[in-house]
Amino acid sequence: FPSRLPDVGTTIFTVMSALAAEHQAVNLGQGFPDFACAPALVDAVTQAMREGHNQYPPMAGIPALRQAVADKTAALYGRSYDAEHEITITAGATQAILTAVLCCVQPGDEVIVLDPCYDSYVPNIELAGGRVVRVPLTPGTFRPDFARIAAAITPRTRLIIVNSPHNPSATVWSDAEMRQLEALLAPTDVLLISDEVYEHMVYDGAPHCSAARYPGLAERAFIVSSFGKTFHVTGWKVGTVAAPAALTVEFRKVHQFNVFTVNTPMQHGLARYLADPTPYLQLPAFYQAKRDLFRQGLEGSRLRLLPSQGSYFQCVDISAVSDLGEADFCQWLTREVGVAAIPLSAFYGDGFDQRVVRFCYAKKDETLRAAIERLRRL
Amino acid sequence: FPSRLPDVGTTIFTVMSALAAEHQAVNLGQGFPDFACAPALVDAVTQAMREGHNQYPPMAGIPALRQAVADKTAALYGRSYDAEHEITITAGATQAILTAVLCCVQPGDEVIVLDPCYDSYVPNIELAGGRVVRVPLTPGTFRPDFARIAAAITPRTRLIIVNSPHNPSATVWSDAEMRQLEALLAPTDVLLISDEVYEHMVYDGAPHCSAARYPGLAERAFIVSSFGKTFHVTGWKVGTVAAPAALTVEFRKVHQFNVFTVNTPMQHGLARYLADPTPYLQLPAFYQAKRDLFRQGLEGSRLRLLPSQGSYFQCVDISAVSDLGEADFCQWLTREVGVAAIPLSAFYGDGFDQRVVRFCYAKKDETLRAAIERLRRL
Ligand SMILES: CSCCC(=O)C(=O)O
Ligand SMILES: CSCCC(=O)C(=O)O
Repeated sequence: FPSRLPDVGTTIFTVMSALAAEHQAVNLGQGFPDFACAPALVDAVTQAMREGHNQYPPMAGIPALRQAVADKTAALYGRSYDAEHEITITAGATQAILTAVLCCVQPGDEVIVLDPCYDSYVPNIELAGGRVVRVPLTPGTFRPDFARIAAAITPRTRLIIVNSPHNPSATVWSDAEMRQLEALLAPTDVLLISDEVYEHMVYDGAPHCSAARYPGLAERAFIVSSFGKTFHVTGWKVGTVAAPAALTVEFRKVHQFNVFTVNTPMQHGLARYLADPTPYLQLPAFYQAKRDLFRQGLEGSRLRLLPSQGSYFQCVDISAVSDLGEADFCQWLTREVGVAAIPLSAFYGDGFDQRVVRFCYAKKDETLRAAIERLRRL
Repeated sequence: FPSRLPDVGTTIFTVMSALAAEHQAVNLGQGFPDFACAPALVDAVTQAMREGHNQYPPMAGIPALRQAVADKTAALYGRSYDAEHEITITAGATQAILTAVLCCVQPGDEVIVLDPCYDSYVPNIELAGGRVVRVPLTPGTFRPDFARIAAAITPRTRLIIVNSPHNPSATVWSDAEMRQLEALLAPTDVLLISDEVYEHMVYDGAPHCSAARYPGLAERAFIVSSFGKTFHVTGWKVGTVAAPAALTVEFRKVHQFNVFTVNTPMQHGLARYLADPTPYLQLPAFYQAKRDLFRQGLEGSRLRLLPSQGSYFQCVDISAVSDLGEADFCQWLTREVGVAAIPLSAFYGDGFDQRVVRFCYAKKDETLRAAIERLRRL
């Protein structure tokens, strides 16, 4: 039978993690922490299981967790979502984004993505029968180019997907940029998916400019986040979507026939753990220290460091150390130097190769030091 | 924006569970156990979390769990699946079925479902852009009518979805029926989703005739099962798909861009717990006793009991106790008698009302006794 996704192979993250394991390389490829989550969070999940919270939760998520998300969003971003009708718990951010795309994109609708982008967006749009419209971020700086975005909007544009802090470039959209997006979309009916999974990883005292802060964006947005990223449990696969009630109704129609609902004990554990904001309020400082350790370690090497304003990631220009293309460089680096990275070309529709690769610094300090030692030999 | 699923409301299971809670009714509606899972299973998950198994597992599932599923399938049904290329761990059976549908159904393809059927199948097909072809099971007996199925197959038929043990009717397909399906599909390219989530709930010494036993079915089948059902943890949302490598490649393309992967500690816990087959081998006797308790309790009442050969469910004909339609009867029964049930009409495309409702007996004996006491008053 004909493939629904003929262009899709195994994700670059799986490929590079497997190669890293095979060569016992330090894995700075796939974005996940190699350190433990908080024991109190594990204990909260254990307690929930022992209390018998092991059967189906409500379809949209347990009320306590939805309320905790609504309270956090109100406190941090000043928008009050109704936990009952506007917050949904998902099996991770990836499922949230597919579900949002499936609920609003009809065959023939156009969806704008900003290149480079996370590798699930385009297949998600294709599964919905939508037409992918790729608008490049500004080459070199990865900032949004609003003139180009404006030029891409047509009467058929149903949706635009944005992502800040940005994977893979580690840029963070400014308040001015969010306002420009708000102004640009104001005269349109275009919906928005705002992928904010790194919302608590913004550095140097800058704010996270969540779409929730901008009424003209929030009213049309599915805002996606991830407890996996926030609490160092990427394998738990629990995320959230905040969206106005009218959008949430359509989101949940698809959600209930996709996963129906999300792991009960994890939801109870997370709801209890969220009562204390300290862990996520401390996260910027925690990850900024890792970013700085990694950057300082590479200073004086011939890898040119790009800015890392947020997220798990540090991008580096490899042109002074190798003649290889990005993808070959990452293979070579994993096999011969013992450090896995991700080529930025994997995030582009046309495989654009700008000689930049992405390292993940969400790792133990000793892991980062081991990688630095190897990378300084380049 | 136009709804992708204009006909979909909240599932009947959510509606009836909410109504049951509101009226403090005994909830025999939604299919989930009200008793505890094995403490050893909880301990195995806790141990996995404490050992640090909290980050992304491999996309298709952890090797130990996939191997355990392959070993169990070989031991029980005599077919050897390759754990590496033919078994995938999913976020429950519902996600497995949507993912299977999305990976093989193109807009315009026809998909046969047997009415009545589980309520996610039809929206799943609609999301893929497929055309739903409903073939009724034989009225009264709910047995497959192969003449009608044969008549529904056209050159555009891509897929048929079958389900045994059957929700809602509690029928179990016989070996002869599975062979008839095999013979019917032999000259075609029609793919098969075999929803076998109640595989370990077949009673009276009958075998579960898994599609895995029939080479002509297995070679074209996505076989779906659910640890939630098998181990009394419906809220954990872990299921499996077994399919030949060529089908699994396409399945995983969609899976990786839907949920990407499934809860890590649950997978480790389940893999360890599966080492001992006793729990699932004892399951038929365990649930048969509950079925018999419930049936014996209703003997002499004016509710006419239909056969329950497998699954969690007992269907009853209400025509001797009420003039209400099924849906109204279930509302009335919940509010006035204090027992929640599900109307079979919810599983039909046209809302066909045959005066039959479904009770779930996957409940503590004391819960069943409380329901019996109330139902005997009818
Ligand atoms: C879902 S695996 C990829 C993890 C991740 O977000 C990344 O490495 O970009
Ligand atoms: C996914 S909620 C419904 C549970 C179930 O399978 C049923 O009650 O039929």
